[in-house]
Amino acid sequence: MATVNPPRGMRDFLPADKARRERVLAVIRERYRAHGFDEIETPVVEEYGRLHAGIGGDNEKLSYNLLRRGLDAEAIRAGADDPAALSDLGLRYDLTVPLARFYASNRGQLPGVFRSIQIGPVWRAERPQKGRYRQFVQCDIDIIGDDSARAEAELIVASLDTVDALGLEGGTVRVNDRRALEWMLDSFGFGDDERPGVLITIDKLDKLGPDGIVAELRERGATSTAVDAFEMFLRRPQTTIYHPYGEAQIRRALPEGAPDEIVAHLVGLGEAVAAARPAAEGIDPVPLAFDPFLVRGMGYYTGTIFELAHPSVGYSLGGGGRYDGMIGRFLGQQVPAVGFSIGFERIVDLVAEREDAGAAAVVLVHDADVPTPELLAHKAALIADGARVRVEKRPKNLKTLLERAAADGYTAFAAVRAGDDPSAIEVKPLG
Amino acid sequence: MATVNPPRGMRDFLPADKARRERVLAVIRERYRAHGFDEIETPVVEEYGRLHAGIGGDNEKLSYNLLRRGLDAEAIRAGADDPAALSDLGLRYDLTVPLARFYASNRGQLPGVFRSIQIGPVWRAERPQKGRYRQFVQCDIDIIGDDSARAEAELIVASLDTVDALGLEGGTVRVNDRRALEWMLDSFGFGDDERPGVLITIDKLDKLGPDGIVAELRERGATSTAVDAFEMFLRRPQTTIYHPYGEAQIRRALPEGAPDEIVAHLVGLGEAVAAARPAAEGIDPVPLAFDPFLVRGMGYYTGTIFELAHPSVGYSLGGGGRYDGMIGRFLGQQVPAVGFSIGFERIVDLVAEREDAGAAAVVLVHDADVPTPELLAHKAALIADGARVRVEKRPKNLKTLLERAAADGYTAFAAVRAGDDPSAIEVKPLG
Repeated sequence: MATVNPPRGMRDFLPADKARRERVLAVIRERYRAHGFDEIETPVVEEYGRLHAGIGGDNEKLSYNLLRRGLDAEAIRAGADDPAALSDLGLRYDLTVPLARFYASNRGQLPGVFRSIQIGPVWRAERPQKGRYRQFVQCDIDIIGDDSARAEAELIVASLDTVDALGLEGGTVRVNDRRALEWMLDSFGFGDDERPGVLITIDKLDKLGPDGIVAELRERGATSTAVDAFEMFLRRPQTTIYHPYGEAQIRRALPEGAPDEIVAHLVGLGEAVAAARPAAEGIDPVPLAFDPFLVRGMGYYTGTIFELAHPSVGYSLGGGGRYDGMIGRFLGQQVPAVGFSIGFERIVDLVAEREDAGAAAVVLVHDADVPTPELLAHKAALIADGARVRVEKRPKNLKTLLERAAADGYTAFAAVRAGDDPSAIEVKPLG
Repeated sequence: MATVNPPRGMRDFLPADKARRERVLAVIRERYRAHGFDEIETPVVEEYGRLHAGIGGDNEKLSYNLLRRGLDAEAIRAGADDPAALSDLGLRYDLTVPLARFYASNRGQLPGVFRSIQIGPVWRAERPQKGRYRQFVQCDIDIIGDDSARAEAELIVASLDTVDALGLEGGTVRVNDRRALEWMLDSFGFGDDERPGVLITIDKLDKLGPDGIVAELRERGATSTAVDAFEMFLRRPQTTIYHPYGEAQIRRALPEGAPDEIVAHLVGLGEAVAAARPAAEGIDPVPLAFDPFLVRGMGYYTGTIFELAHPSVGYSLGGGGRYDGMIGRFLGQQVPAVGFSIGFERIVDLVAEREDAGAAAVVLVHDADVPTPELLAHKAALIADGARVRVEKRPKNLKTLLERAAADGYTAFAAVRAGDDPSAIEVKPLG
């Protein structure tokens, strides 16, 4: 038999890691629920056709398909040219496609404005590399049925509160609007058909810089006068991230003449977030920044888009945006929707190791000759007192054993001999 | 596009169901951790060869295989006769095979006696029917590295404590030992090669009754004198479940001359469980029953086996046993192991709906003209007070809205108008 390792690009979680993941998930659940979101769950597999309907963008190509059951060799040969013949189901590559399907299926039992939490693994056949896995957990919140900036503010406030609660205070949300981007590209003179390609290039601004962007656009053969206009705009003596967040900054960040409706929506979002954030000294009341070049990869965004930045790291800790068109594709009826996905795998690595604040965790070390009923009576008495108890036979090297237990989160130990009185067991702190 | 329902045999969980599932899981996690078990996690997919190595019994035939990525039509045709050519990975059908793989991979970082918790979904392509799903959650605890009855007692005590904590007091664990079964079949005169088939028949005793069992054994062509001996034993004027649990009952339950070693092991298990259980009035100190015909389906059991019964239902709520041979198949070195799997999907249906004991859950109903910043300030103030808050626009029919919120676990409501003072919002209990 082959290796005993987990499949390539996937991970085993040992007790200490798993405990930390569960602690972080418990905080996320609790905070999102406090903000009025309700958790749902869908199966991890969805129909092949649904996963390959063009909504998932590049992720569709990275998806794992299940081999249709019950096919004999002949049927396999006959279907060799047709993926859908070989595969009726696939593992989900995100939580958004399943949410749209869930909403279409269960809408009659959900509130008019539905605020969902989804927490669960997704699968993508990425090339394995540091920090990128083929199975990873996503934490999404979405609001379906509300097209206002209020829904976007609720998502942003809940997400900031959640990362605050995890000890990652000081986050900032970078905001843009797909409609502003589109208007900007129009105003430079790019054609509608050029837009998707130009957005893909702009998305690389952080990596390539303005010169690289302009060079790539020219290579692509984008309308030359439009690239000229874009280049002039890019070379203005300006920052690309506008903070503090407000109407003046948004207007300055965009070319002149930006549509009032879009600007008003963005300004309203800032006011709503400000009203909901704690007004304490040292806390930024509007932890937003306007970023006119924020793109977000997915093709389905239709309005406000956002990304969560944190001073401790150079990458984003989450993001999302408005995708008013998608639910309609499942439902045959337009329903506005906006979502925010927290980068759980990134966040869990940032959250400091913390002792369980709760119960005492006791390693119960026993001599080899303690009769089993006596030993389990000691264990039961400690559990009844509210402790978490791991039983260990006294080894030659007690120190090593206690060090390992401490690494696993145990905080105390007790040693018992045969005949000890259960009511007289002395529990001592570890370390 | 096809249906918006989840794939056949799988389920969506709406907020009320999902909240209940998470509450039950939180209790299970907390209780198992109190008993010294540590949670781990493995990927939901494992290598095809590992899932089809004969350990999984009938479940191997029910497994979902992933279509190997990167195969072109030619490669598919070439591999049509070889499942392993088309599929390198599969969805796990239980948590035991992954645990054995995990232990072999990570043993160096685990305690000498490793007590694991695993909670997660598994997949089986069962024919969908009431109460049987193609994706369902298993909750397993296992002790690896301890071959004594103490390990078995720890599993039983932890599991009983857990179902007690879920409000399902009064559970009983039916106990048997595969070695006792094998000795019994030997003593009747069945051959070693007949044993697996005879066990499959005995496993149907509840369903077929003694007459049905004997008839099936004769049909199978089992050694006729052995069937005669078995029939005589079955027709003794005896019960098939022996309670209270103790040496006399165990000896009476088995044919005369049962090996002392096996009986002593079973008696020791009862003493250990008794020592660890609360000694209060009305509580059975040894909630065990000996069942000489308990089989448990899986071929990998080697010693004590058990099944959790509860007076409220006719089916078992969990079970497990000792499987000392399996880890060795992965590790090339014998390691004793014993596990107990709680039937999560069955238990979650039995656990009574309970109000969240924790924070107040407030529906914040607002007039249409309340400005968004005002509204979100009200929401933030209630959250800061520790409440869970769902915002809803006042509908024509407030009653329907509040009823739905109550069904979702909300316990209070507050109505706000434009200009209301956040510090003067009145929160009223719902219903």
